[in-house]
Amino acid sequence: MKLRKAAFLAVVAGAQGVPALCRQKPNIIFFLIDDYGWVDSSVPYGEEVYPMNRNFITPNMERLAEKGVIFTNAYACPVSTPTRTSMMSGMNAAHTGITNWTATLRDEPSDAVDGGFDLRKYTDEGKDGLLRPDWNVNGLSPVEGISHAQYATPFVRHLRDNGYYTVHIGKAHWATAGTHGASPYNMGFLVNVSGSINGMPRSYYGSENFGNRPEQWNYMAPQNLAEYYGQDIYLTEALTLEALKALEYPISKGQPFYLYMSHYATHLPVMKDPRFVDQYIEMGQDKGQAGYASMVAGVDKSLGDLMDFLEEKGIADNTVIVFMADNGGNANTRDKGGEPHMQNAPLREGKGSCYLGGIRVPMMVYIPGKTAPGTRINTPVLPEDIYPTMMELAGIRNYDHVQPIDGKSIVSLAVKGSRLAAKAARKGEISSQKEANAFVVPESVSGIDPNREVIMHYPHQWKPKYKEEIDFLSTIIVGDWKLVYVMMNTVPGWSVADGKVFELYNIREDISEKHNLADEYPEKVKELAVALGKRFREWNTPMPRYKSTGKTVPYPDEIAER
Amino acid sequence: MKLRKAAFLAVVAGAQGVPALCRQKPNIIFFLIDDYGWVDSSVPYGEEVYPMNRNFITPNMERLAEKGVIFTNAYACPVSTPTRTSMMSGMNAAHTGITNWTATLRDEPSDAVDGGFDLRKYTDEGKDGLLRPDWNVNGLSPVEGISHAQYATPFVRHLRDNGYYTVHIGKAHWATAGTHGASPYNMGFLVNVSGSINGMPRSYYGSENFGNRPEQWNYMAPQNLAEYYGQDIYLTEALTLEALKALEYPISKGQPFYLYMSHYATHLPVMKDPRFVDQYIEMGQDKGQAGYASMVAGVDKSLGDLMDFLEEKGIADNTVIVFMADNGGNANTRDKGGEPHMQNAPLREGKGSCYLGGIRVPMMVYIPGKTAPGTRINTPVLPEDIYPTMMELAGIRNYDHVQPIDGKSIVSLAVKGSRLAAKAARKGEISSQKEANAFVVPESVSGIDPNREVIMHYPHQWKPKYKEEIDFLSTIIVGDWKLVYVMMNTVPGWSVADGKVFELYNIREDISEKHNLADEYPEKVKELAVALGKRFREWNTPMPRYKSTGKTVPYPDEIAER
Repeated sequence: MKLRKAAFLAVVAGAQGVPALCRQKPNIIFFLIDDYGWVDSSVPYGEEVYPMNRNFITPNMERLAEKGVIFTNAYACPVSTPTRTSMMSGMNAAHTGITNWTATLRDEPSDAVDGGFDLRKYTDEGKDGLLRPDWNVNGLSPVEGISHAQYATPFVRHLRDNGYYTVHIGKAHWATAGTHGASPYNMGFLVNVSGSINGMPRSYYGSENFGNRPEQWNYMAPQNLAEYYGQDIYLTEALTLEALKALEYPISKGQPFYLYMSHYATHLPVMKDPRFVDQYIEMGQDKGQAGYASMVAGVDKSLGDLMDFLEEKGIADNTVIVFMADNGGNANTRDKGGEPHMQNAPLREGKGSCYLGGIRVPMMVYIPGKTAPGTRINTPVLPEDIYPTMMELAGIRNYDHVQPIDGKSIVSLAVKGSRLAAKAARKGEISSQKEANAFVVPESVSGIDPNREVIMHYPHQWKPKYKEEIDFLSTIIVGDWKLVYVMMNTVPGWSVADGKVFELYNIREDISEKHNLADEYPEKVKELAVALGKRFREWNTPMPRYKSTGKTVPYPDEIAER
Repeated sequence: MKLRKAAFLAVVAGAQGVPALCRQKPNIIFFLIDDYGWVDSSVPYGEEVYPMNRNFITPNMERLAEKGVIFTNAYACPVSTPTRTSMMSGMNAAHTGITNWTATLRDEPSDAVDGGFDLRKYTDEGKDGLLRPDWNVNGLSPVEGISHAQYATPFVRHLRDNGYYTVHIGKAHWATAGTHGASPYNMGFLVNVSGSINGMPRSYYGSENFGNRPEQWNYMAPQNLAEYYGQDIYLTEALTLEALKALEYPISKGQPFYLYMSHYATHLPVMKDPRFVDQYIEMGQDKGQAGYASMVAGVDKSLGDLMDFLEEKGIADNTVIVFMADNGGNANTRDKGGEPHMQNAPLREGKGSCYLGGIRVPMMVYIPGKTAPGTRINTPVLPEDIYPTMMELAGIRNYDHVQPIDGKSIVSLAVKGSRLAAKAARKGEISSQKEANAFVVPESVSGIDPNREVIMHYPHQWKPKYKEEIDFLSTIIVGDWKLVYVMMNTVPGWSVADGKVFELYNIREDISEKHNLADEYPEKVKELAVALGKRFREWNTPMPRYKSTGKTVPYPDEIAER
């Protein structure tokens, strides 16, 4: 261990103040999967292997898990753009004000109904309701002066300006058309394949030109992929090939690279990946389940292909891999098969929701020679941590940023935390997955409070039909406790879920958030509501408005303190 | 002059065998305009200023002309893809077999009617006709094994592999969808904005998303430009901004760059550039003329913006500019205003044609410190010359190429030729534009025979309605003599133009190709037909087939020698 630590320190030392082309700087791959749930893998992130885990065969994720460290308690925002812009800015989404995904066109809110709920149904009944907040509908902007956008210095610019060859492959979706944030070239990327304003493809099939067809409106068509049109190739595979192609150049020059491998999969539409679907059908899965599982398998192959490539090129030992998803799995579709709303079981609900199914996501980190292999860390990780983490991984200090940065680097957590966990395992203090998931890395070691606040905010209506487990919810998690702020229940005449404005769960004991303990622990409710309100106030977080008065919904502390 | 020569030699010496990041290597900008005619400029390429020249105001082209050397006798193929693939491969288009533009989709010929002429009209009359040849409908391929494609090593790869930062902005159009040639990334470019399978935009307006709209089928929509959607910006301007943005990186690193600034303008649709149109209306031009002239002015501004940028960055003295068009101006549209077929006057016809209006194009070259300013060179330049020229400009020798290279470097022609011309001017041997255009640079100086063969071949039918000045023509130019092979006149029952299979023009005396001298100079006809046939045979050039028999049209020497 001493030797390894010495090597690690040497690398860290070498990474500071060295010329741009120094081989010592690690390459970084950020592997991001879309709408990919916490249980959608043969790698178990929970304290046990859940039945859903058995529906997926992901050998390359297992391979990464064996090499690296699993973060069992990683979070993303309920939907895509908030997570992606949070990662790119280092700010919490309740702070950027980018709380929903960006529509394709400028100044167009993506909120389902611009009245906050199904006006056609409820207006006639004379009911009050919630209107969308004045949120940053144009997403993130790397330049000043774009209305309804968060101005920020993207971290990728720092990587580029510090010698990294920065490659964007796949989905971007940080901003609307007609704004600078629409283009990865403005975010600091030197190469862009496909990244634009679209959040999903119309088709995953090359034979269908990935949706770029006369009969399909295609702001949504991934760009720069015409070489695969008409071919029997899956989008995930095409993007992987593009990534490998783009990496040849920096590798040939010995230049460190940052690859943002941002797959469209496993977002809807569910379209089976023909290479992998048969095994799932044979396992007895229904068509939707097998189709979705095959999409996951395609992403798994992509990860494996990248890892193989690194080994072939002799750079696996100098390439960091950060693996994550941008929000929870979609649990509001029959296309994925199984039972809607239960597709992330044991987690409650899915994409869009502030219940765990929407926000807890798979995450793994591998820092060669630094992270202890096969370990698990329970400290929460947030999207805004990506920014400072990337800076530390690249050895970049004293970087400019016009925005405040809310996140914390998780490098020490990953490195020292995983070693501590490995040591505990060697000593026999950890002997089960459950114990591993419960292992605490103290702040004194990692620099991160294991009971740090996890805050997510979705002040929107997702779809035309109001969904009480998704729309107009906020949450704060501190340790085992999770508060859910049900904004609809502040509207007179509404009583959704169990009718309470606040729900309180002990997510260690009740990971499925079935038992609302708010009435039993009023002081805990108040404590968390005050903490959440304090942050919202500090961040000037956008809140929905009441349809009747136009006034904004109160911050949660106001209600808790009444 | 001695000092300047010394500096020049130092640069050349410095360019050989030096590390990739040496500042001595010149940057190269290849500025290519689409469908841009020989007289569409206030820079006169002819031996006099023609009336059409007075319809255009192009101060930045004048600025380049003052700094560099004008090639008065430069050629492109009659249509886009043949020129572009010829440039990229170093082969004549009659040699690549890419003799027409590539359609968007693989294996689909772009020929207007897959019977070689309007079957509906003529089949009933029992007439024979011409069918399209078996040409390389899939364009150029950087990988082996693509059917109906010319396999070649693109020169841009050599630039990239020799330290150049290679940037593609605008129109690519080398190949069909589903083939590697569809992507600039496969051709050696590190950056690509917009380049794909499309040969034109559906709209030049950002406010119309450059044609990427629900109601428009948009294989044709230029990609990677979402940040300008909905904005009042012209495509030419957006591409220029993208170019300047992309160049910041190599300039900041001191890395030499190759910028392929490949404008969609001035291709149809004619859509006025609002920044420039008023001055042309005020000059009394009709709507079409003014609209087209404003598009030219937009391209002129782009050139000026690039030149300004180079000066601001302090690299103008180390940046070569090669300025050219990909074929003659379109003379088959009323949208450009004026009189159809006369829009390139005094040249005959336009785009698509083997008459001079289709193939003679504007060209200028500026090699700082090397080319003598304000000079004119009359030696013919061909698209296939671009490949070896770029190699010599970049100081790259002994490069691999799987294809034969037909072109010749014009660097010595530009440098030594322009100096010889400047010397002659100083001595008073050249005192008029006409004399300058007639000035001959001997092969002993330039390495290029001033009477070299210019060969163009268009064995296709362009549009559903047969056009006798465009369809199924070939040409060879040697010195002042130009032979036109009218393939339709080999079909029994057809008698187009003056009914002759061969036309012969003295293009020095008759630049408008009005007087067919074939009957007066049968030996010249035979000489040129034999020379043309010899090349076609050597290159295995695709020829149309007779509808009645399926046999190919004879090479011209076979007919001449009958």
